[in-house]
Amino acid sequence: MTASFFPIDTPIPFEGPDSTNPLAFRHYDPDQIVMGKPMAEHLRFAVAYWHSFVWDGSDPFGGQTFQRDWFPGDTMDKAKRRADVAFEMFRLLRVPFFCFHDHDVRPEGASLQESHARLNEIADYLERKMDATGVKLLWGTANLFSHARWMAGAATNPDPDVFAYAASTVRACMDVTHRLGGENYVLWGGREGYETLLNTDLARELDQMGRFLSMVVEYKHKIGFPGQILIEPKPQEPTKHQYDYDVATVYGFLRRYGLEGEVRVNIEQGHAILAGHSFEHEIALAQALDIFGSVDMNRNDYQSGWDTDQFPNNVPEVALAYYHILKGGGFTRGGTNFDAKLRRQSIDPQDLLIAHIGGMDTCARGLKAAAAMIEDGALQGPLDARYAGWDSDAARAMLRPGAALDDIANRAEAQGLSPAPRSGQQELLENIVNRYI
Amino acid sequence: MTASFFPIDTPIPFEGPDSTNPLAFRHYDPDQIVMGKPMAEHLRFAVAYWHSFVWDGSDPFGGQTFQRDWFPGDTMDKAKRRADVAFEMFRLLRVPFFCFHDHDVRPEGASLQESHARLNEIADYLERKMDATGVKLLWGTANLFSHARWMAGAATNPDPDVFAYAASTVRACMDVTHRLGGENYVLWGGREGYETLLNTDLARELDQMGRFLSMVVEYKHKIGFPGQILIEPKPQEPTKHQYDYDVATVYGFLRRYGLEGEVRVNIEQGHAILAGHSFEHEIALAQALDIFGSVDMNRNDYQSGWDTDQFPNNVPEVALAYYHILKGGGFTRGGTNFDAKLRRQSIDPQDLLIAHIGGMDTCARGLKAAAAMIEDGALQGPLDARYAGWDSDAARAMLRPGAALDDIANRAEAQGLSPAPRSGQQELLENIVNRYI
Amino acid sequence: MTASFFPIDTPIPFEGPDSTNPLAFRHYDPDQIVMGKPMAEHLRFAVAYWHSFVWDGSDPFGGQTFQRDWFPGDTMDKAKRRADVAFEMFRLLRVPFFCFHDHDVRPEGASLQESHARLNEIADYLERKMDATGVKLLWGTANLFSHARWMAGAATNPDPDVFAYAASTVRACMDVTHRLGGENYVLWGGREGYETLLNTDLARELDQMGRFLSMVVEYKHKIGFPGQILIEPKPQEPTKHQYDYDVATVYGFLRRYGLEGEVRVNIEQGHAILAGHSFEHEIALAQALDIFGSVDMNRNDYQSGWDTDQFPNNVPEVALAYYHILKGGGFTRGGTNFDAKLRRQSIDPQDLLIAHIGGMDTCARGLKAAAAMIEDGALQGPLDARYAGWDSDAARAMLRPGAALDDIANRAEAQGLSPAPRSGQQELLENIVNRYI
Amino acid sequence: MTASFFPIDTPIPFEGPDSTNPLAFRHYDPDQIVMGKPMAEHLRFAVAYWHSFVWDGSDPFGGQTFQRDWFPGDTMDKAKRRADVAFEMFRLLRVPFFCFHDHDVRPEGASLQESHARLNEIADYLERKMDATGVKLLWGTANLFSHARWMAGAATNPDPDVFAYAASTVRACMDVTHRLGGENYVLWGGREGYETLLNTDLARELDQMGRFLSMVVEYKHKIGFPGQILIEPKPQEPTKHQYDYDVATVYGFLRRYGLEGEVRVNIEQGHAILAGHSFEHEIALAQALDIFGSVDMNRNDYQSGWDTDQFPNNVPEVALAYYHILKGGGFTRGGTNFDAKLRRQSIDPQDLLIAHIGGMDTCARGLKAAAAMIEDGALQGPLDARYAGWDSDAARAMLRPGAALDDIANRAEAQGLSPAPRSGQQELLENIVNRYI
Repeated sequence: MTASFFPIDTPIPFEGPDSTNPLAFRHYDPDQIVMGKPMAEHLRFAVAYWHSFVWDGSDPFGGQTFQRDWFPGDTMDKAKRRADVAFEMFRLLRVPFFCFHDHDVRPEGASLQESHARLNEIADYLERKMDATGVKLLWGTANLFSHARWMAGAATNPDPDVFAYAASTVRACMDVTHRLGGENYVLWGGREGYETLLNTDLARELDQMGRFLSMVVEYKHKIGFPGQILIEPKPQEPTKHQYDYDVATVYGFLRRYGLEGEVRVNIEQGHAILAGHSFEHEIALAQALDIFGSVDMNRNDYQSGWDTDQFPNNVPEVALAYYHILKGGGFTRGGTNFDAKLRRQSIDPQDLLIAHIGGMDTCARGLKAAAAMIEDGALQGPLDARYAGWDSDAARAMLRPGAALDDIANRAEAQGLSPAPRSGQQELLENIVNRYI
Repeated sequence: MTASFFPIDTPIPFEGPDSTNPLAFRHYDPDQIVMGKPMAEHLRFAVAYWHSFVWDGSDPFGGQTFQRDWFPGDTMDKAKRRADVAFEMFRLLRVPFFCFHDHDVRPEGASLQESHARLNEIADYLERKMDATGVKLLWGTANLFSHARWMAGAATNPDPDVFAYAASTVRACMDVTHRLGGENYVLWGGREGYETLLNTDLARELDQMGRFLSMVVEYKHKIGFPGQILIEPKPQEPTKHQYDYDVATVYGFLRRYGLEGEVRVNIEQGHAILAGHSFEHEIALAQALDIFGSVDMNRNDYQSGWDTDQFPNNVPEVALAYYHILKGGGFTRGGTNFDAKLRRQSIDPQDLLIAHIGGMDTCARGLKAAAAMIEDGALQGPLDARYAGWDSDAARAMLRPGAALDDIANRAEAQGLSPAPRSGQQELLENIVNRYI
Repeated sequence: MTASFFPIDTPIPFEGPDSTNPLAFRHYDPDQIVMGKPMAEHLRFAVAYWHSFVWDGSDPFGGQTFQRDWFPGDTMDKAKRRADVAFEMFRLLRVPFFCFHDHDVRPEGASLQESHARLNEIADYLERKMDATGVKLLWGTANLFSHARWMAGAATNPDPDVFAYAASTVRACMDVTHRLGGENYVLWGGREGYETLLNTDLARELDQMGRFLSMVVEYKHKIGFPGQILIEPKPQEPTKHQYDYDVATVYGFLRRYGLEGEVRVNIEQGHAILAGHSFEHEIALAQALDIFGSVDMNRNDYQSGWDTDQFPNNVPEVALAYYHILKGGGFTRGGTNFDAKLRRQSIDPQDLLIAHIGGMDTCARGLKAAAAMIEDGALQGPLDARYAGWDSDAARAMLRPGAALDDIANRAEAQGLSPAPRSGQQELLENIVNRYI
Repeated sequence: MTASFFPIDTPIPFEGPDSTNPLAFRHYDPDQIVMGKPMAEHLRFAVAYWHSFVWDGSDPFGGQTFQRDWFPGDTMDKAKRRADVAFEMFRLLRVPFFCFHDHDVRPEGASLQESHARLNEIADYLERKMDATGVKLLWGTANLFSHARWMAGAATNPDPDVFAYAASTVRACMDVTHRLGGENYVLWGGREGYETLLNTDLARELDQMGRFLSMVVEYKHKIGFPGQILIEPKPQEPTKHQYDYDVATVYGFLRRYGLEGEVRVNIEQGHAILAGHSFEHEIALAQALDIFGSVDMNRNDYQSGWDTDQFPNNVPEVALAYYHILKGGGFTRGGTNFDAKLRRQSIDPQDLLIAHIGGMDTCARGLKAAAAMIEDGALQGPLDARYAGWDSDAARAMLRPGAALDDIANRAEAQGLSPAPRSGQQELLENIVNRYI
């Protein structure tokens, strides 16, 4: 790196809760032991390349606000400068992982082959930087939505040539992800969805998407990629209806195409909110269905109907997310990715650091609160008590195959059942959570 | 019936589009042939007992506004008076079907047995009226949500006795539905959902619900009930999260418990809107997944975040719904149920007639428009053209099991594919639809 | 009081943050000095009579879940028993205030006069209890929405007799509020709004509402009531459109009818959320417009499109609300009313105590955080710096009457202005807030 | 114009409802007399320059999809080519008006002066084309949101230099609008709002905005511009909270700064929907408050939480909008602007024509239906009957200044009023509307 971008050179220190230094952690102490292992290993933080190093601050109503010396990123030199700054930030923040799309790290070539050649060249560059810094790849992915060729979808495109083009692109990205030791490979639906049913054959497009995903899984096994394949649900935007609407929808899709043992979900808080769910709902549901994989820890503004991708800052919400993550055993290959962008008015280099610091501290507080609730059994105890009636043999028998409506109904009538309601104690449980935050 | 409730005695006539008679049909002509069969057989209208004859006009901010001589319905005499008026309305409207919950037709007894006995007694009464009028039962269902015992769910209750009580109740309702020749049996989720994850074991409750539904299906086969078992999706209300969120969620649930060949969906427009979908989306998706069953044709106000259950009045929206219904082959055992209620200020007896007349006319117009679009191939032609690239052998081969990402990627690169975007023509297609409405 | 309702008899103690006693305060210590005065005087907590003592747990999909020995409240004896329990709860919780509608405290009579007589009788009873306990009335109000006569509005009703009936009812409630030393008199819009524009004359109804409010203000002065007249904004529910939509709408209404110096707003968090605003937005806006009066401190579930009236439990949100309240000088005659209801599954008497304890503790934490931010100037400093450019005479001159577009434009062009953007520092400020919570 | 862009050269003909020609009007017959004047004079259609000729199809997730030979528009030659094509489209569509921002018609210069010089040069060019074609300017406006300098607002910017820069820009745009005979001058809020209250002084920013608007009005009078000054409400996007939230908010703002006699509103359907209102609500409210000015006739997708700016296609909705417009006397200087953009997949030149044709036909049908309802008194009759009770002297007296709560209450009690509810007839009225569509 020839010139420094950030105003500091020393990694962000942990200074404890009383610090007022905006460039210090107050809660994230990577080596602090929580439930038996270092906080860093629980959280597995990752920075998203695109928002922090590719996006220029534009929105539908205005153009670039960020001045970065690697904009526009249309040459390989600019791409390398961008990588230099990115790895400098990873070092300063002490994050162990990053994530990228092909489109983030190299300028698109004039042909598929040239694009792939550039991707491989920049992968060499990234590989050296990863080796030098120890920063690892949480996941790689392909951008199948920005170029005009994807405007009607990638795998679900009405044009089979686009499907084939997507196959080539995804292969290249999987190859690079595998080479760089990626922990996961992610497919976010991009433009797999529709703008109007009037020009859409839903059944056909779902089958195209199912077949494409099957081939991705087969290719993973062929090349021996040990990572997880992850789908990232989102209900809408850019399309009016995204096929990977939410966790429940993705689960049904995986079952339909026999992929439920092969593919897991990467859940984003912002997308959960847009789908009308809480973040913890999506996490808990994915765990109940055994498809939980990883998270994108970025919030949506509750008042905004579009994807705002903001850094998390509400500790109680984040605590409930980690509560369910820890309860399900924590991350294996997944992690906490900040798919978050600065507000477009936050134009200073240090805003990038400050935003990540705030997000990491929020997560660290949430994790500690969640761990304490688990260690105390603060919520599990009342939960077990609530369902204790189901512990009896007679009760459990009703749920076993072979139990018949007739028999149960006969018994209910013979016994003259008249069950008495019991308090759900919601307010008590909410107060208990607040003891930990 | 000893006293007349409605101000007219003659069934509503069809008078054609120019009529200004509020008590005449302007579009619904039951015998008019549309796509080869009478309009009545396409539409299969049903009146919902509860909204029109049980609800008293109360809402969370106020009490009864409707004065009906069968309120409160706490005696068998009142229940019979209510049935008299209901069948009088079916006759006046010339609707071929109705739907009911146990709770709508009989006062609850002091015990399970007494409740069942009353249900059977009123079923005798309904049976005689059905025989006399030719009105049939589109579906029966059990109310598992109004009484306090259901406050934490029925099949998903933390108390196994409530599960057993639900089994007895559903058996009784299935028996009556079978006896009355019901075309379907419906399960709407009621309070199967949660208010807070803090007191909820999601995995356990889903398993309870899956097992319950399996027993319902087994019981259906045991008694030889020939009707469809239908689940009615809804995203929330009364609970914060209803397990049967939307069509995609229900599909995943059915797959999880191996019930996708046994259970179909009853889709309500209002619930689709609350879930962030269009009505036609839910219908088209159910057809793509082969679980379409029936519809509740009542809209939600787009501005209101709760279930408003209004009679349909927007012809373009209804036309798109019937377009997808007809495209999928139309109803078999399903139908068009008005799960719609009067506005609570519409307190006159004739408002009940007028509301149904308006809804039926709106559906008739929608059906005719949809049928014309299908007969003309107005939308199917452009749709086929859009996907025509997939008709080639080479394209289709990419979707077959055995096709490999590697091979497709190699070909794409060898051929130097660079697919050119083609117009999606959304505005043209929207204009075409408007030609038919 | 002849029989005890609650399981404890000793007022809820303050035990500090480490207490795990569900019936203790962990943060609310009424006498703790915050910014120079006791916490209790800042917060001015009030309990809402209706949710805690009148509502029976019913919702649109089900009936009563709470068993209370004063249900149904249709006799004066029951009304007195209800008051006994209410004041017992005020004592246990150590809340200094309560709020009520006429409808909450007395059964409606067969005539206006009988209703008023009953109201006066029960007011005597309340007065004695207030004297005995020192509990005061934060505000009184009239229920102009539950009875069928109000179904089309009160002041905005198409029937002038309903307008007159409302005048009589409000006079009676104002008289009682005055007699009981109420700090405020509140008008919540109830059914002042519409279900459909098709039957509504908007201009006429707004004028009716404006005239009615003017008479209320005139009557206040006539009887010498020293309290504030407050309007409580809400965007919808029960009606499709409530005329008092939000703070901005109420402000315009007050200006239109010349009442902006006479009437203030009572802002509810849940209503703010339903209107698409944050709670702090509504508070800050009311202060900017100089119409801030009081708050209802109850949240809405972000996923639910209807009014959920939940006890507050998110400290960061509550802290921002108190930040703006304190910044504007705090409450004068207003206070913190819990217009919150138990979840309908929270059926035990102690749930009532626990819910209020949690809400009060949440507010206490929020208040302390807000006070610390103000004392440190943590947010005010950066804010002043951001607008510092406007401190110059030249800048201020542009905002004075007499400044002309022409002159400013000429200067801008002559100086060749090309303003450079400066960071908005949103993430930094969010991190600063998190230091205090 | 040197090269043709559109595939046709002859203006779009009116061919009547049975035409299947996608490049013909089926309902819009400009000369057809409706309620005494030609349809064209009622509707006063305008095309928005920006969406059709400036936007390149990009969205937050992808780049350019439209190939236009005037992209990128960074030279004056390109700007003229763009104008050529625009006027060619106006001619083909036979629209009488257009609208533009400065930013749409000229490339921004290196300085304020250069930008203005370019604006004046292109205005000369436009003026010649207007003279040649007879197309007129419905409104001009300034783009105060796209460039980075506006990122924190224009009039509400924390930097007074931006305020001054905005003054210069608006003066230039008002001058050009005046010179071109514009019927109105519009201010859409752009970035006048906030992203976070943490860095925002609400009171100060509102005062800045109020003062700015006052200067605009004063400048209008100074130069003798006869047009209307219009504010266009929008609730959010691009900012989290736009100060011109909705009609009610704008009204309060105008009253606060004494501008209610000088400024009116330009109401957009899409913005109404985003604000939680119906389009007809915003129109009816603006008329009740006497600030109605003009409309942007473009819809939002009800499922999408961002501004989708789609061409109108739902006739019933559009009919209700024109019903209220006509009821209020129709447009004076306002008109029907299509602030609508193609879907980004609609990449063919003829899609531009087809989209406008569909929108114009939808409006024509809506207008005809609205006119017929008015001529028949179909809705007005029942409305008058509903409020007839207020026609009596006694009733009207209650609304006059001087009427006192006391007197009315005394009378109500003396007469023992007990008003009986009357049906609101909503379903009947909805059915009546459907007779006209």
